Amino acid sequence: MNNNCTGQGNPAGILPEKIILASASPRRRELLWQIGLAFQVMPGEGEERAKSSHPSEMAAELSRAKAEEVFQKLSGKERQGCLVIGADTVVSCKGRIMGKPAGRQQAEEMLTLLQGGTHQVYTGVTLVYQREGKEPEQTVFCEKTDVTMYPMSREEIRAYVDTGEPMDKAGAYGIQGKCAAFIKEISGDYNNVVGLPVGRLYQEIKKISQGLWGQGQQQGDGEP
Amino acid sequence: MNNNCTGQGNPAGILPEKIILASASPRRRELLWQIGLAFQVMPGEGEERAKSSHPSEMAAELSRAKAEEVFQKLSGKERQGCLVIGADTVVSCKGRIMGKPAGRQQAEEMLTLLQGGTHQVYTGVTLVYQREGKEPEQTVFCEKTDVTMYPMSREEIRAYVDTGEPMDKAGAYGIQGKCAAFIKEISGDYNNVVGLPVGRLYQEIKKISQGLWGQGQQQGDGEP
Repeated sequence: MNNNCTGQGNPAGILPEKIILASASPRRRELLWQIGLAFQVMPGEGEERAKSSHPSEMAAELSRAKAEEVFQKLSGKERQGCLVIGADTVVSCKGRIMGKPAGRQQAEEMLTLLQGGTHQVYTGVTLVYQREGKEPEQTVFCEKTDVTMYPMSREEIRAYVDTGEPMDKAGAYGIQGKCAAFIKEISGDYNNVVGLPVGRLYQEIKKISQGLWGQGQQQGDGEP
Repeated sequence: MNNNCTGQGNPAGILPEKIILASASPRRRELLWQIGLAFQVMPGEGEERAKSSHPSEMAAELSRAKAEEVFQKLSGKERQGCLVIGADTVVSCKGRIMGKPAGRQQAEEMLTLLQGGTHQVYTGVTLVYQREGKEPEQTVFCEKTDVTMYPMSREEIRAYVDTGEPMDKAGAYGIQGKCAAFIKEISGDYNNVVGLPVGRLYQEIKKISQGLWGQGQQQGDGEP
């Protein structure tokens, strides 16, 4: 179940020694690799359903469910000095919330709604961690990115759906894939649209680490 | 010299049959691959110097020099139905224009200036092409993206320069690499910061193609 993604841990006192990504998404894994974090992958099994109907609350709630499920599975010893990351991404356009498309037709419908306008992508992130001799703690945040697309013709939408790229992605597109040809501009964190706002995430992990190990480091005094 | 990057050409009548990327940058190559274009790579040899001092004019001027140099090398027959892409990226911060750093010290200086604030990235793009029986034509444009970085400590800057990532990049950072941990938000096209605004580029190529082959296609009627 544990899948060690790098040969070594993170530098103690600067970052948590053990980071667990509670997600099966290959894109989230690649983003953590990209910024050079050492981590393990341990996806949850639960099929979460959100109670909230606002996209930012929904994304935060689902990220919390994922992180808590995985943290619960750890033994008391495993929890010490460990940080679990849960994340969930939802796309919101004209009052409609979009997850992954159920099939080809729904993918085409989603893209028809998204093309030629601006929509919002929300990624909720929950960090669960435990200081020695203390109760577990949580940090929850949600990042929003506005994405503006060029118009797409019906033929362009069909040809894009034919690539298979939309099927496992919220909103039926991959900004990091062929859909880049149709992205006019974004406002916010690009990686938030890919599935994990690694800029904000790194800043939050640094803050927690400084508290966790109590080294009294200056703000911003870590490793990239 | 010609380096065919895909096994097949682009669909005639929709995109130019032959596209040449006049750049040695592996990142620009990857971005064209990403959106599924068939192209060849033919970098120019000239060391261009810009006359303009405004970053957007400078990027446009340098992109034009690259595209024209490569177009000039083609035979009259090779030019027919062919489109040459030149591109140049410059970073501008607080009135200072940044190219690639000359060494480690300059990379640290650039990052010290960029961290904790907002700067501008300009990529100029020139497309040179020739309709049958006509003179060569050009399309020149420049895209601007604002990039906001989190603060970086001196230790973080040094550790980032140690990765070697800054050395071949305008502004001494790669947004698509480890520096993602320090990017707060952007406003504009992300790929413009990587080195090629593929969204706008694809739209411009579609417009030219419709004119080149005179198929009277509707706006937006192409392949992704």
